[in-house]
Amino acid sequence: MAEPLKLGLAGLGTVGSATVRMLLRSRDELAARAGRAIELVAYASKDPPKDNTIDLSKIRKVESPVALAADPGIDVFVELMGGEGDPAKSSVEAAFKAGHGVVTANKALIAKHGVSLAKLAEQNSVPFSFEAAVAGGIPIVKTLREGLGGSRISRVYGILNGTCNFILTQMQKEGRSFAECLKEAQKLGYAEADPTFDIGGFDTAHKIAILTSLAFGTEIDSDAIYIEGIESITLADLEAADDLGYRVKLLGVAVCSDGGIEQRVHPTMVPKGSVIAEIDGVLNAVAVDSDMMELTLVGPGAGGDATSSAVVADIVDLAAGRKVHPFGRPVGKLGKLSRAPMQRHEGGYYIRLAALDRPGTAATIARRMADENISLESIMQRRRKGRPHGGDNPGAAGASASVVLITYATTEDAVRRALAAIEKEGVLAEKPQVIRIEKS
Amino acid sequence: MAEPLKLGLAGLGTVGSATVRMLLRSRDELAARAGRAIELVAYASKDPPKDNTIDLSKIRKVESPVALAADPGIDVFVELMGGEGDPAKSSVEAAFKAGHGVVTANKALIAKHGVSLAKLAEQNSVPFSFEAAVAGGIPIVKTLREGLGGSRISRVYGILNGTCNFILTQMQKEGRSFAECLKEAQKLGYAEADPTFDIGGFDTAHKIAILTSLAFGTEIDSDAIYIEGIESITLADLEAADDLGYRVKLLGVAVCSDGGIEQRVHPTMVPKGSVIAEIDGVLNAVAVDSDMMELTLVGPGAGGDATSSAVVADIVDLAAGRKVHPFGRPVGKLGKLSRAPMQRHEGGYYIRLAALDRPGTAATIARRMADENISLESIMQRRRKGRPHGGDNPGAAGASASVVLITYATTEDAVRRALAAIEKEGVLAEKPQVIRIEKS
Repeated sequence: MAEPLKLGLAGLGTVGSATVRMLLRSRDELAARAGRAIELVAYASKDPPKDNTIDLSKIRKVESPVALAADPGIDVFVELMGGEGDPAKSSVEAAFKAGHGVVTANKALIAKHGVSLAKLAEQNSVPFSFEAAVAGGIPIVKTLREGLGGSRISRVYGILNGTCNFILTQMQKEGRSFAECLKEAQKLGYAEADPTFDIGGFDTAHKIAILTSLAFGTEIDSDAIYIEGIESITLADLEAADDLGYRVKLLGVAVCSDGGIEQRVHPTMVPKGSVIAEIDGVLNAVAVDSDMMELTLVGPGAGGDATSSAVVADIVDLAAGRKVHPFGRPVGKLGKLSRAPMQRHEGGYYIRLAALDRPGTAATIARRMADENISLESIMQRRRKGRPHGGDNPGAAGASASVVLITYATTEDAVRRALAAIEKEGVLAEKPQVIRIEKS
Repeated sequence: MAEPLKLGLAGLGTVGSATVRMLLRSRDELAARAGRAIELVAYASKDPPKDNTIDLSKIRKVESPVALAADPGIDVFVELMGGEGDPAKSSVEAAFKAGHGVVTANKALIAKHGVSLAKLAEQNSVPFSFEAAVAGGIPIVKTLREGLGGSRISRVYGILNGTCNFILTQMQKEGRSFAECLKEAQKLGYAEADPTFDIGGFDTAHKIAILTSLAFGTEIDSDAIYIEGIESITLADLEAADDLGYRVKLLGVAVCSDGGIEQRVHPTMVPKGSVIAEIDGVLNAVAVDSDMMELTLVGPGAGGDATSSAVVADIVDLAAGRKVHPFGRPVGKLGKLSRAPMQRHEGGYYIRLAALDRPGTAATIARRMADENISLESIMQRRRKGRPHGGDNPGAAGASASVVLITYATTEDAVRRALAAIEKEGVLAEKPQVIRIEKS
C-alpha cells in the first residue's frame, strides 16, 4: 500500500469538527476506498473545536493557517475556515505554492477567486477540490464535472439555500408571515442573526456562479447575476400560487440561450408535482437539463454531517490519485461568459396588483399589458381579506382588490414597461409584486 | 497532450448507436475534459446500426466481438451488446486478458459475473466501469463509489424500472387496468412483447444487486433477492393507497440491519409528498440513506441518450486516467453478503381482503391478526364497486366486501401466518393482497 496521505486542516467550526470526526472514525473504510491511509497530522484553529468530543491530543497544532498550509509535513491542506478573503485565500495560495493539494468547502472563496486559484493550482500541478462549496452533501460538482459524458447542458437550477426554503415552506404550510417564519428559522439555528446573506439571495448567487462555470465551461462571473431575495413574498402570493397550481421557491438559475448565459436568483413559481416544487424545509435540490436528459439531485445543503461527507469524498479522490480539473477542463479552456441581460429574459410571469377598486381599473390594466403585447393566461381577482364582500361600494376611497395575472411567455422588459405604465395611471394602491415562472 | 484513447465498441443497438453519435459529435468537448482525444477506431455488430445516420465508413469493422476485445489496436473495449452470457462475457474477459479496459452498460452481466470480472480486471491492472448498467443516466454508481465520503449507508432503494413505473402511473392517473396500461406501454415501446423481465421485477433485481454491493461493500449476491412483480396490483389497491395517503411504486430495496442485508423487489406503498412517490412515468429515482444524510437522484433510467451519456462519462474518466475500483474497493476487501431472511423483514403492511359479507367475518379477521400481535393503524371497509349498497342482504352467498388494513410495524412472518389462519377460516372470497409500506 502507498504512503499515507497527510492532511493539515484549518477551521474547527461545524464543518471542520465534523470532518475531523469522520476522518478519525472511518479510518479503515477510507483507507480501503483510497488504497492508502489518510492521516490528519496537523490543524490550525483560532477557536476551540465546535464539537469538543473530538480528540485532537495526538494531532499537532500549528499557530497560523498560512503556516499550516505551507507546512512540509502535509500533502493536502483542508480549508474549512470560510470567507472570501484572508486567511482563507492566502492560506490556499500558500498551499499551492508549497506543492500541496487543497480541499475546501468555501463557496465565497470559489465564487470570487475560484478561477485564479485553479490557475495557480494548475501551475503548481496540484489538485484543488470544492465539492462541499455547493449544496452541501449533494455531489453536484462531481456530477457536472464527471457524470454527464458528452451531454450539452442547457440549464442548471435549484434550491440552493436551506434557510430560504425553510421559511417559504413554513409560510406555505403554516400560513404564517415571512417575519414570523424568519424568527422561527433563527430560533432553530437555520438563519443567522443578520439573515441578509441568505434571504437576500446572495448565498444562492455564490453557488449558482460556481455551477454556471461547471455546467457551461466558462469562467466564473459572479458580478453578472441578477439577484432578488424572498423578503417581499407574502402569504397572499403563496395562496394565489397554490390556487394556480404552483409553489414559490427561491431558485438559482443559469440558462444558456442564444443571447448568452443568464444567471439569476429570485423567488420563482414552479409547477406543483414537479420534483423541485415538492422539496420542503431545509433540503436543497439541483436540476440539470441537457440535450440528453434531465437530472435532479436532492439532499441536505448544509450541516456538519452532510458537508463534511462531501469534504471527505474529495479527500478520498485525492488520496486515490484521481485527477480532475477543478472546473472540469484546464483553466485556459474555460470560455469567457457572455452575459445575457436580464431585460431580455423570456418566460411567464405572475403579477399581483393591489388595484384601486373603481370603474375602469381592470380596463386600464388590460390595455397597458396589451400595449406591450403581453398575453394573459389567467386573471384572478380577489377582494382582500378583511374587506367587505359584495361589491356594493366600488368607488370607496382607498378600497383595493387584489388582481393576479399569469402571463404567457413574454420578456422582462415588456413586463417592466407595462407595470411602469400601469403605476403611472394611478390605479394601484401598492407597488406591484412580480414573480417569474420557471418551466420544469 | 497525451496519445488518443482508442476505443473498440461492440453492439450498435439503441445504446451503441447513441454512444457512437455522442463520441463523434462531442469530440472536442470530450478531449478538453479528458485531456486527450478519444477515438472510436473499430466496432463489431451483427446487425446494422439501429440509428442509420451515424457514419461508420471510416471506422474499421471487426467480425467478432471477442476478436475486437483482444484487438491490439484498441485501448478500451466498450461492450454494449447486453446479456449475461456470451459473447458479452467472453469478450469482456478477452479484453481484460489483452490488457484493455472495459466500459459496459450490461446490468445482467454485472449482476451475475460483476465480482469475478472485477477480479480479472484487477489481476490485469485494467479499469472496468459500468455506470450505465444501473438507472441509465443517473450517476448513482459514481455517487456510491466516490461521492459519499465516510458516510455509512443504511439503505439504498429506488424506482429502477421505467416500464413498471409507467404502468403504475398510468393506472393511477387514468384509472385504467393493469392489462390496458401494459398494452399501452408496449405500443409506446416502453415494454417488450414478452414483458416478464420488467413487470416481474427481475430487471429491478439485477440493479438492486449491483447497488447493494456498491453501498455496503459486499460481493454481489443476486440469488438472495426476494422478488415480487406488479402483475397483481389492481385499481382497487391504487385507490385505497390514494385514500390512505400513499402511492404504489415498484421499488428495489437494500437495507443493512442487525440481521444482515435485506434485498427485495416488490410493489411498495410510499407516502405521498415524498420525492419517490412523486416520480411519474418512465423516470427512475434512487435514494441513499446514510448516517450523515439522505440523498435522492432522479432522472431517466433508460433510452439511448441517457444511457450513452453514462457510457461516455465512464470513457472520459478512463481517458483522464482516473482510477477507481469497480466496486469502490479491491475485490479482496469486499465482504461476503450476510443475508437477512425475508421472513424477518419488519415494516408496516397494507393488506386488502375480499371478505365474505356475513356475520363474524370482521371479528375473525381481527382475532387472527391479534393472535400474531399485529396492531392495526387503520381499517377501511368498502363494498365492491357494482355490488348493491345498503347492507340489507348481508348473508347473500358470494357477496364480499373489500377490507383494507394498514398495520403498524410487524414482521413478514407474522403477516403470513395471520393471513394463512384467516384463509383457513374460509371467510375470504379471494387470495389476500399484501403490499409492504416503506418509510421515506
